[in-house]
Amino acid sequence: MKHLGRHVLAEICGCDFDILNDIEKVEEIMVNAALEAGAEVRECVFHKFSPQGVSGVVVISESHLAIHTWPELGYAAVDVFTCGDKVNPWDACNYLSERFSAKHMTAREMKRGIIPETYLKEVANL
Amino acid sequence: MKHLGRHVLAEICGCDFDILNDIEKVEEIMVNAALEAGAEVRECVFHKFSPQGVSGVVVISESHLAIHTWPELGYAAVDVFTCGDKVNPWDACNYLSERFSAKHMTAREMKRGIIPETYLKEVANL
Repeated sequence: MKHLGRHVLAEICGCDFDILNDIEKVEEIMVNAALEAGAEVRECVFHKFSPQGVSGVVVISESHLAIHTWPELGYAAVDVFTCGDKVNPWDACNYLSERFSAKHMTAREMKRGIIPETYLKEVANL
Repeated sequence: MKHLGRHVLAEICGCDFDILNDIEKVEEIMVNAALEAGAEVRECVFHKFSPQGVSGVVVISESHLAIHTWPELGYAAVDVFTCGDKVNPWDACNYLSERFSAKHMTAREMKRGIIPETYLKEVANL
């Protein structure tokens, strides 16, 4: 079978400290990244760590966007998981990189949901 | 530098339909997976789709656990991202697989947060 989704893991480096340490800005940028990529936002949750750093997730109809920031390293670990053909996870990653004033991004795309036939047949026979 | 975290992407197949379609059960199992792995739970958000399927995330001090379920395929896409040495993401994945009565799990571990020296030096010089 074809895969169900695409999961991009992005290492975003050389980012602006103040943005990565501001929970409201990070949340706003993450939600906008989802919208820019054409996703439908369902739920959000963000958390601020002491003394620094933000973690958060935007749940979308098409799966999720997650982020963990290390402002002191100028680094954000992002992953964007999308299902279907409507939303391109790379659009969200590129938007985030730009809005964080990043100097560098490396990213890997993993295919998700390639289910062995044998388990699908079992489900079909239930 | 050493990596900051480990990110395990798990394809969990042959799962129980009723569990994967029950938002309360999925949330309870996800939170317990985090606790079983020794993580500290910070925030949770879960969403039920119509006619079926659940998406949700548990934000932990050490990063996150995320899930998207396709009950009709007996499939759950899970990813567990942990930072530091205290929490083992595989413990959470194995716990989830067992609690979903899965017949099969395949998983890949990706290292996260390997930041090129050049960007770390820039941050240090600010």
